[in-house]
Order: sequence, then structure tokens, then C-alpha cells
Amino acid sequence: MRDLYHEELDGISDKLVEMTRLVRSAMARAVTALLDADLRLSEEVIGADEQVNKIDAEIEETVFDLMARQQPVAGDLRILITSLRMSGDLERMGDLAVHIAKTARRRHPESAVPPVLSATVLEMGQIAERMIAKAGSVIASKDVEMGLELDADDDAMDRLHRKLFDILLSPKWKHGVEPAVDITLAGRYFERFADHAVHVAENVVYLVTGQRPEEINDLNDL
Amino acid sequence: MRDLYHEELDGISDKLVEMTRLVRSAMARAVTALLDADLRLSEEVIGADEQVNKIDAEIEETVFDLMARQQPVAGDLRILITSLRMSGDLERMGDLAVHIAKTARRRHPESAVPPVLSATVLEMGQIAERMIAKAGSVIASKDVEMGLELDADDDAMDRLHRKLFDILLSPKWKHGVEPAVDITLAGRYFERFADHAVHVAENVVYLVTGQRPEEINDLNDL
Repeated sequence: MRDLYHEELDGISDKLVEMTRLVRSAMARAVTALLDADLRLSEEVIGADEQVNKIDAEIEETVFDLMARQQPVAGDLRILITSLRMSGDLERMGDLAVHIAKTARRRHPESAVPPVLSATVLEMGQIAERMIAKAGSVIASKDVEMGLELDADDDAMDRLHRKLFDILLSPKWKHGVEPAVDITLAGRYFERFADHAVHVAENVVYLVTGQRPEEINDLNDL
Repeated sequence: MRDLYHEELDGISDKLVEMTRLVRSAMARAVTALLDADLRLSEEVIGADEQVNKIDAEIEETVFDLMARQQPVAGDLRILITSLRMSGDLERMGDLAVHIAKTARRRHPESAVPPVLSATVLEMGQIAERMIAKAGSVIASKDVEMGLELDADDDAMDRLHRKLFDILLSPKWKHGVEPAVDITLAGRYFERFADHAVHVAENVVYLVTGQRPEEINDLNDL
């Protein structure tokens, strides 16, 4: 019975990795759809999110089922609860990729991104994609070092986010309000995506080291 | 031992209600600060969020402690996990009130909200405040009917959010990009705040009725 139980725990971990793969693919396509004003690609992303939601629901069901059947002790409970949280973060990251795809769709056949911003948006998209890929590797490998790397990626995302606003709010901005609204929202989606990726990695670090995610450490320092 | 345990469960519920009270107050002040360009009030909101984060951390600690010590069975486990989720939602709602207060602070001494938008922003703020107040009552009373009311409030919020964009993107908009960016972000914060309030209520409904939150029902209907 215990063996089956640990197989089920491994199954959850595999499903989380599969979610990161789907979300990485969604983010890559959403950014390309945004930059290329590609309607087909944006609809692909929107349609594919169902699969991410389905895995999230499966993980939740498995976790509740294991808790009810096995009455797991402290360490295993921590794995189960942390898995629920990671699944929730990944599900939300899928939604954020969908939001970016919908921004592309809303402005099609025009592009939502004026050329002056395309390099910055591309770079934000690349960081987002790298972060979710790393989150997947961290879940699979339990590599704490790589988990901590995501903080630096998040800082880079924040810098690009500020740069986006600098460009939007500069006197040279000639594109009016509509693209500014789109870009403001897209910037927010990228930033939240990065935050969730950091949470996922922090949860793995917490599982491996027993240290709580950084946000909670910060709190305890108050 | 069981009695102490159930006292601790009640204590968690009281703390969740206290979080809703603090977050309601934060949202009320943040909206007033935004509309009045009131720097002092916005800084009050920003400073007070620490208290919300502290209760969130306390709830998490209590939940993990109870799980480790008591090995709760299915029904109690559900209460504990649901409490963790509600606490997480409420903590995030506190952050969103802070984001609104920071928008007010960033534009001070100017107002971030042009007069043409102040009625819509006020109404979004009132709905947000009502939703968090209801969420608190729902946690305290376990009133499923009231819990389901939050869906209608959320629909009203979505309608106002669309109205905000209609005004921003109308040819009559004369306020340029900077207020458009502020309002786009503020609108997003209100909308997310409402989503989290709905989640909190859904979690109570789930605890009382055993039915999963609507999002998961939707999923199962696919």
C-alpha cells in the first residue's frame, strides 16, 4: 500500500512537470502570436488551456483522495499541500498566457505591439519562457540551486517591466491610448507570470530544504 | 485534545474574518485615497498590509501544526486546506488594495482618476468593498445563499470594468496615456480583487455543501 502511495506521489510530480511543459508552450506561442498578430496561433493557445486546467483538477482530486485514504504524516502532507499550491500557480500561469493570446486576438489584424516596444516585449516573453522551463526542471530534478536562480530572472523581468512603462510614458510615444492599454495589461501579465514561476520554484526549495518560501522568510524578519 | 483541536479550528475561522475586516478597510481607504489623491491615506493602506500578511502566516503555521500533530481525517482536512486557500486569497486581496493605494501615491499631488471616470471607479470600489464584507459574513455565518450572491457582484464588476475601457478607448478621451495606464492597472486590480472574493465564498460553499468551487464544476462539464 505504501508503495502504491509513493507511486501516486511520483505521478503528481510528473503531472506538475507536464503542466510546466504545456504552459511553456502556451507562453511561447502567445508571445509569437502577440508579436506577429497571428490569429491562428492565439486561438491555439486559448484552446489548449483546457488541458492545463484538466491536469490541475486531476492533481487536486488525487491529493484529496490520498489525504482521505492514507492519512499521510507530516513530511508527506507537506508534499501534498505544496503540490496543490504548485498546481494552482501553474494553472494561473496558463491563464496568463491565454490573456496574452487574447490581447493578440483582440487587436488582430493589427499588432498590439508597436515596433518601438517589440524588442522589450520579446525579451519579457523569453524570460517568461525560460522561467517556466526552469520551474519544470526544478520540479523534476529538485535542484535547489536552479530554483534560486529564478529570483534573478524575476529581477530581470521587473527591470523590463519598468522599461516598458518608460517607453509608454515618454514624450516620444506616438501610438496613443489603445496600444498603451494593451501593453500595460500585457506587461502586468508577464510580471505576474514571473511571480508565479518564482513561487513554484520556492515551493520546491521548501520541500527539499524545509525552509519556507522567501516571502514568508521576509515576513518573519518583520 | 479533540476539544482544543476544534477550538483551534474556530480560531482559524476568526482570523480569516479578521483578515476580511482589515482588507475591507484597506480597500475602502485605497479607493478614497485614489479619488481624493490623499497621500496620507494611501500610505496608511500600504503600511497596514503587514498586519494582513502576519495573520496569513499565522494561519499557515497553525494549519501545518494541526496537520502534523492531529493527523486530521477527511472532513477536518478539508477545512484546513480550504482555510489555507482562503487565507492566501485574502492576503492577495490585501496586496491588490496596496497596489491601488500605490497608484494614488505615484500620481500625488495629481489625481490618478480623471473626473470622467470617477463615478465608475467609485462604483468599482464600492462593489469591491461590498464583496469583501460579504466574504467575511459568509466565513462567519457559513451562509451559502450569501456566498452565491458574490457571483452577481462579480458580474457587476466585470460590466464596470468593460465600461472603464469603453471610456478610456473612446475618441472623446482627452487625458492621454499616463492616466490611461493608471486606470488600466487599477481596473485590473479591482477585477482580480473581485475574483479572489468569489473564490473565498466558493470555498465556504464547498465546505458547507461538499460541492467544489464553480470553476471546477465548469471544468468537469467540459
